[in-house]
Amino acid sequence: MAATPLSERAVQQVHIDLGERSYPILIGDGLLADPAVYAALPTAAAAVIVTNTTVAPLYAQQLQATLAGRFAQVQQVQLPDGEAHKNWQTLQTIFDALLGAQCDRRTVLFALGGGVVGDMTGFAAACYMRGVPFVQVPTTLLAQVDSSVGGKTAINHPQGKNMIGAFYQPQLVVCDLGTLRTLPAREVSAGLAEIIKYGPIADMAFLDWIEANIDALVAREPAALAHAVRRSCEIKAAVVGQDERESGLRAILNFGHTFGHAIESGLGYGEWLHGEAVGCGMVMAAWLSQKLGGVDAAFVERLTALVRRAGLPVVAPALGAQRYLDLMRVDKKAEAGEIRFVVIDRPGSAVMRPAPDALVREVLAECVAP
Amino acid sequence: MAATPLSERAVQQVHIDLGERSYPILIGDGLLADPAVYAALPTAAAAVIVTNTTVAPLYAQQLQATLAGRFAQVQQVQLPDGEAHKNWQTLQTIFDALLGAQCDRRTVLFALGGGVVGDMTGFAAACYMRGVPFVQVPTTLLAQVDSSVGGKTAINHPQGKNMIGAFYQPQLVVCDLGTLRTLPAREVSAGLAEIIKYGPIADMAFLDWIEANIDALVAREPAALAHAVRRSCEIKAAVVGQDERESGLRAILNFGHTFGHAIESGLGYGEWLHGEAVGCGMVMAAWLSQKLGGVDAAFVERLTALVRRAGLPVVAPALGAQRYLDLMRVDKKAEAGEIRFVVIDRPGSAVMRPAPDALVREVLAECVAP
Repeated sequence: MAATPLSERAVQQVHIDLGERSYPILIGDGLLADPAVYAALPTAAAAVIVTNTTVAPLYAQQLQATLAGRFAQVQQVQLPDGEAHKNWQTLQTIFDALLGAQCDRRTVLFALGGGVVGDMTGFAAACYMRGVPFVQVPTTLLAQVDSSVGGKTAINHPQGKNMIGAFYQPQLVVCDLGTLRTLPAREVSAGLAEIIKYGPIADMAFLDWIEANIDALVAREPAALAHAVRRSCEIKAAVVGQDERESGLRAILNFGHTFGHAIESGLGYGEWLHGEAVGCGMVMAAWLSQKLGGVDAAFVERLTALVRRAGLPVVAPALGAQRYLDLMRVDKKAEAGEIRFVVIDRPGSAVMRPAPDALVREVLAECVAP
Repeated sequence: MAATPLSERAVQQVHIDLGERSYPILIGDGLLADPAVYAALPTAAAAVIVTNTTVAPLYAQQLQATLAGRFAQVQQVQLPDGEAHKNWQTLQTIFDALLGAQCDRRTVLFALGGGVVGDMTGFAAACYMRGVPFVQVPTTLLAQVDSSVGGKTAINHPQGKNMIGAFYQPQLVVCDLGTLRTLPAREVSAGLAEIIKYGPIADMAFLDWIEANIDALVAREPAALAHAVRRSCEIKAAVVGQDERESGLRAILNFGHTFGHAIESGLGYGEWLHGEAVGCGMVMAAWLSQKLGGVDAAFVERLTALVRRAGLPVVAPALGAQRYLDLMRVDKKAEAGEIRFVVIDRPGSAVMRPAPDALVREVLAECVAP
């Protein structure tokens, strides 16, 4: 309780405006250890920290100690690490732990980890006793700039990624930039994919800034990371605030994801990181955008170079064109068997539209490893 | 398409007012076969009828034929019948079918069956691709007057009933009274339990009416059933409209359910029908209400007699008092280990409150089989 009060520290705040489901995103260093961050949460007897076996030894004890001042009972549930475990069996271990500890419907869940932990904990919170409050505490760059914000929760189905889930908003998102220090370099790159994404779809000035600072971001310079996380959350907040349940606009946040999901699913979840697949998927979506007349070749080249500098793959794995098409047809954005892609219609602006299979095959011919 | 237009038939309508999640309940005979009933649903390529192996041979073909005029593709998924199958494995068969048929997120699900089919289909609709539209087509009396209305969906967990679920509203509820003709007598009684419930908690005049008409209801006289279904839905609609997510008032609809769930869970799901357990549970809750001073002995006697005349059990199974208490402590209404009961504070009005274990043991001593 002797921590410096929130107001006196370098904490940035982004607000997600969704009426009665509104909540703040707090961004700063050392937030895991600051009781003031958690002071406004609903009163409850119990808190449960859901994390994984990789993150737990690094940060669980710290968060548990901070929450112990606020909740009479603080428990931990550790999930196996990785996208391959983002399924019903793992979700069931959360429910078993909650019921085993007789957790009631005021219990607050804390998702401490990356996107997989956040998606699963959020979905568990959405379903347990038809909904309990939860807090996102993302510890990866990707989760801080994308998956922890906006209330998309899900698990995978053997036939498709994120097929079973809910729109369910957290009470609070806590981005402790300090946790990024222990992140493997490959995961930093994966997070940069989602940061880069916000440029082409919404803010070319931000893309300019990312280009100018990509080396600082890869090197995890604190000031660069702080700006990138805040600006990414601001753009995401603006989009989600207009279209919480993805009936339209929000789909632009999936730029690069239709190709990316096909890569992830085709190789088997966990082979490529989600951010790696999205990085390569953005290059493919840029090619498609060019073929549809939205951007020129220089734009595609610029985006490709930036993705490469971020340490991400720009050549797609050879799954076979037909397999790519089949995988993309089960994408959630598909309608009546027609694959729909997020494409750039002009730099800084994205739309969703179908594309003829023949054009998609041309893109695959350009981007897939020979 | 030659069916009599909706407006010219004896169709009653109750409106659930939940802002953008509002929807109508239609009540009448022959609605399964009337295309006009389904005319206002959202446009989609595909409809999927989820039903069970008991209901399918009776009504699935009829509904499928009616929907064929509206949806290019109408599929069926048949679940095994019974509360014992209201679990994740069965839910998974719905997801497998939807993904196998490449159903997109405009697909409309139809829950054709009783409470189990409705709860599972609704939860599948809530989760599939983070939410697809669905329609409740309840074919049991219990589902028509209670479970299909109000958006509670769930599956059971080995450690508790309806522990995993969502609040997710249908687009429409279609109560075809004609389907009640094929209902086993035991299921008619089970439905009457939930109808009787609305009296003590909300409307003593309705309780008078039920008492006067209980034999007609047991005999399934159409006019009596039509009135009972409509009035039950009206009361439920009024309560749900004020408290969609059960943060307060809505809990009164669980009168008899805390004891009832303990009976169901203690005996093993499916041994007693849900309505049978609720019927007996109401008698127990009436006893508790008397001990707490809300009603007199005559009220308990009157309710007990009515429950008995409805063909329902009024003596609880001998599970042991401690087992009852343990089972009730995992009820969703429990908070911080304290069991909370819906009790009648005066005839026609209910409140939720905790009760000392000692008092609950007295009730068990009165109501449990020796």
